[in-house]
Parts: sequence; structure tokens; C-alpha cells
Amino acid sequence: MASTEAYLTGVGTFLPGPPVDNATLAKMLGVSEEWIEVFIGTRTRHFARDVGTGEIQWSLADLCAQAAEQALADAGVDRSEIEFIVMGTATPDTLMPATVNHVADQLGLNHLPTYQLQSGCAGAVQALDLGRTLVLAGRHRTGLVIGGDVSSKHLDPSLDFSGKAPSELVNFVLFGDGAGAAVISAEPAGRRLALVRVLNQLTGLGREPGQVIEWFGMADRDSDRQALVEDYKAIEEGVPVMAVEILWELLGDLGWSAEDLDFLLPPQLSGRMTAKITAQLDVPGAEEISCVAETGNNGNALPFLQLERLAERIEPGQRALAVAVESSKWIKAGFAVEAF
Amino acid sequence: MASTEAYLTGVGTFLPGPPVDNATLAKMLGVSEEWIEVFIGTRTRHFARDVGTGEIQWSLADLCAQAAEQALADAGVDRSEIEFIVMGTATPDTLMPATVNHVADQLGLNHLPTYQLQSGCAGAVQALDLGRTLVLAGRHRTGLVIGGDVSSKHLDPSLDFSGKAPSELVNFVLFGDGAGAAVISAEPAGRRLALVRVLNQLTGLGREPGQVIEWFGMADRDSDRQALVEDYKAIEEGVPVMAVEILWELLGDLGWSAEDLDFLLPPQLSGRMTAKITAQLDVPGAEEISCVAETGNNGNALPFLQLERLAERIEPGQRALAVAVESSKWIKAGFAVEAF
Repeated sequence: MASTEAYLTGVGTFLPGPPVDNATLAKMLGVSEEWIEVFIGTRTRHFARDVGTGEIQWSLADLCAQAAEQALADAGVDRSEIEFIVMGTATPDTLMPATVNHVADQLGLNHLPTYQLQSGCAGAVQALDLGRTLVLAGRHRTGLVIGGDVSSKHLDPSLDFSGKAPSELVNFVLFGDGAGAAVISAEPAGRRLALVRVLNQLTGLGREPGQVIEWFGMADRDSDRQALVEDYKAIEEGVPVMAVEILWELLGDLGWSAEDLDFLLPPQLSGRMTAKITAQLDVPGAEEISCVAETGNNGNALPFLQLERLAERIEPGQRALAVAVESSKWIKAGFAVEAF
Repeated sequence: MASTEAYLTGVGTFLPGPPVDNATLAKMLGVSEEWIEVFIGTRTRHFARDVGTGEIQWSLADLCAQAAEQALADAGVDRSEIEFIVMGTATPDTLMPATVNHVADQLGLNHLPTYQLQSGCAGAVQALDLGRTLVLAGRHRTGLVIGGDVSSKHLDPSLDFSGKAPSELVNFVLFGDGAGAAVISAEPAGRRLALVRVLNQLTGLGREPGQVIEWFGMADRDSDRQALVEDYKAIEEGVPVMAVEILWELLGDLGWSAEDLDFLLPPQLSGRMTAKITAQLDVPGAEEISCVAETGNNGNALPFLQLERLAERIEPGQRALAVAVESSKWIKAGFAVEAF
């Protein structure tokens, strides 16, 4: 039987290794600490590799399984109750098997459907969207929704940085690795957060991508193509406008006013960009829940990192709204949560 | 309002370039035509690159958009009716944007949710599974489900093959490129095929992957890791057993007997493997619908290529069952269709 609501009953996150501060990165990259602070505004981030040696210490599957374990414990749900997994990532460990299946293996889960979405900053919201749909369709009672990214296949912090242009170095200070997860259920239990609305909409028709991340195959690994290309001008101009549109679209759909919001979870691009966007969203009555200045931009993990902070603070009757923008092909995303 | 059934109202496929025969491949690879015929049993395949020059002629987005156009035309549906896209692939053009968004762009679609599943041989079934769920949940009336793969980022047919081991050459004769699509709808229209059941289940707990496909990043593109690793012994042993289990599990779920089946769509690994598996499935009363001997193994496209052939033959009242196995992490997949 179809449910009328889906609930987030537990949230968990996992960040690999110790936080890496700007002093450490500035030394490695040959840039000034002030440049990172002023232009990026991110203070620390985490990497799945050892910063000194480049040694891989965590796979994406490892990070996601750790976050999922935390979410299960937080929900007080036994793993035998998990009926599906939806995961979002831009940086799978391999193309096949999909990483979600290694996560299932580490969690001891079997005989269930697994879905892995290829996605960027909107990925965690897309995963929540699908998890919610699977519950609302009445197909399943309880499942896991996971998001994570490991950027270090492209951004190994132990590489030689001499001679690199500032535009290339930006990515090394902007991104980080991490994972997050939530238990989603038809049962109003655990954290008692109703996921009342999800917005997930491509708006990229005829627009050039704001961000492209390539992968190399056997046939083209020797090419001199750049692996990461960002149009930071388009991102700086486009994302704040889209964020405002998402906020008002979600409020309109819900019949809420901005004054109804107790918490706002703004897009997490970098410390500096998030501050700028939050100012433009202009919801002074809502408490801002951000993490990127401490966690770095770890893509599909970010909304779960925000959700975990939200879950610690929100009280019954309070409302929160999250806004996410994927600049790759301009996806509007967001969701609304009500505590009860 | 939730629907009680989802219908496939149109099917379309697209194969790039002319068929490449075994004589051509045998000459390129320095193997005998007989070896390909006996050990693989595939006669032709298609590539998105020029076989002589290696020049890229089609992206995955191009192939998928072409197949989707065919499916829209086949369903007689205007693109303005399309409310979502679900796509499955193991070989996205880039990690970001997800290729599905470029497909939407080519189709002129905007302001809709797009989902791209990272998946192998079970991917098309996973995409049908999600498309069906989105329709059954009552969220959407009509959407596009797409599957496609372009193997040539790893398997450029213009590479130098001298000195390669037969185990490496197998992949060049086994795989091909292509795409397929279906329009899925709550309306019993067009092709009048009811998608009455979908099976999608991970069964890989504690089992080593049968197939691994890697991608290379900036940091590891110089490594000497192999990009494709198959355990053909595990695949040859495991897949036929799983195929039989899928057949009987689906029949049991549906309350159908093997005698009720008019058509059987068996797993499409290679001409030789498919013949072997079909014999073991042992449903002599059902007509076999296979394509791999002519199309090559083009992964996420295969079930749509079979569906297109099925749609040409099936009559009202007839039943078909499809079986797919993903050997990467051992996913059981399949679906059942009833014409009316």
C-alpha cells in the first residue's frame, strides 16, 4: 500500500583522515594561505589519500559504508530492515561494478535492489528524490540513501604542483572527500523528520555546462585533455540566481512563506560562495546550516553533512529547507523537512 | 493518483556506423576468423569510432538521443509529454555532466528530472524498474527510459594489437556500441505492451566481481592497471545458473508457468554464451528473441534491441519474459511483458 509520507529516521556521515588546513595546502601548492582564505573561504577539508605520500587510504565504497553504518545506528534500525539502496556520486571507484554494490557487500546486505546515480552537486537530492519515491510508491518500507565523493583520482594532493596555473590549483583547495547517508522509511520513527518535498529539475537546455569532469580510458589516457574544466564566471553568476529560484519554487509548492522557515541549508560550493548565496537568499529568520568551510566541497556528501547538523538542532514543529545547484548542466535541486 | 500498470508505448534503437564483420576484425587483431566464430559466436558489431582511423563519430549522448527520437516516433508521443528521463550506462561520456542531460538537450527537453544509473548488463532493466516505479507512484504520466554504451574509450579499434594476449583481444570482438530507448506511460497506448513485472536484485554478497571496468583519473592515468578485467570462468559458470533462477523467480512471482511464455529474451553476452544459456533455460515453447550475434554486446542497449524485435512480433494476449545477468557484482535482473 502506498504511503503518504517518507521519513528520514537516521543520518550518518564520514570524513576520512584528519582535517587538512590551509597552511598545509598552501605549502604544498606553493600559494599563500591568504589567497585560499580570501578567494575560496574554505578552512579545512578531508582527503581519502595521505596528503604527504598520496597513498590511498579509503575507497569511496569504504567512506559510504562507514556513513551508512552511522545512519543505521542513528535510526536504530537493524540492517535486515533495509530493502533498497540509492547512492549518488560523481566519482565511482570503478565504472563496474557500481560502487553501491561494494557498499552493500561491506554492510552485509544482499537480495535487494541497488541504484547508483551518476551526479554532482544535485546528486544527494536526486538520491533522496528516488528513495522517497520508492517509499511513497509502497514498494518498500525502509531503505538507505547515500551520497559520497572521492576527488583524489583527479586531485592527488601529493602531485607536483610547480608550474600549475592558479585556475588549476583552485580545485585542490576547493574539493574534499567524504560521504553521508540517511535511512528513509514509511515509518515515522527515529529522528522524526518528514521529507515533505523534493525538487529535482534539469534547466540546462541550450546552456553550456558550467563544470565538466572527464574520465580517461585505455584509448585516450595519453591525451592532454584537462580532466576538470570549470566556467567559474558562469557559476558565480548562475548559481545564486538559481538558488533564489529554487527557494521560492519550493516555498510556493509547499504553501510556506519564508517566515515559516526555521532553518536554511544553502548550496555548499565553498565558504566564500556559500556566504554570498546565503546573503542573496535573504531569509534572515532562518538559521543557516552550512559545513563547506570545514569539510570542503565533497559533492554528493554535502547535503547529508548539513542534514546531520540540522538533525541535532531541529525541534518538533520546526521547518527546514535545503537548496542545491548542480552547475554541470544546471540542475535545480532542493528539499524540505519538517520535524514532528 | 497512482496507476496500477505501466505500459511500453514505443521502442527505438540506434546502432552507429556499418556492421563490422569478423573478417575485418580478424585482420585488425591478427587472429583467425574461425577463433572469433567458435569462441565468441558473434558475427557483427557496431562502433562509434571509425574502425580504420579511430576517429570518434558518435558520443554516447548522440546514440541515446537518436534511439530516444525513434522511441518517441514509435509511440506517437509528442516530446512535450515527456516528464522524466531515466538512463542506464556503464560508459558515460564524462563523469559530469551526466550524459542523460546532454541527451535531454539534444531532444529539446527541459524542466524535468533526469536520472542516470551507473550500471552494466542489468542497467537497462534497472532503468525500466525506475521508470515503472515513477509511473506507478503516480508522480508522472509518461517518461523516457534509455540504455546505451560506447566501449571505445577503452576499446579503440584502431589501436596497435601486436603482442596482445588472446584474453585481452576477446573484449575487442565481444563488445560493441549502441543505444536503445522506450517510452513508458500510464496510458495503455502505442505498442500496447504492459510491463507487468521487473526483477532487480543484487546477489553479490561475499562474491568476487566477475567483471571490473576501471576509469583513469589525472592522478593515475600513467598506472599500468588493466582497464577491463573479466573472470570468464566465473561468468561461464555463474551466469547460466543465475539465468535459470531469474526465469523461475519471475514466473513464480507472476503465477505464470513456462508454457505460458510465447517469447523468451535471454541474456546477451555473446552469440555462443547466449545459445548455451538459452538451452539451459529450456523453454522450448517460447520463441527466442536474441540480437547479440549481430549487434555485439553493447551492454545497456541490449534489452531495448530485444524489445524492438519483440514489439514487431508479439500479438495481443501473448507473453514475453526477459532475463539479464550482471556479472560485475552478480545482479539478477529481468522483466515480463504482456501484449493486449
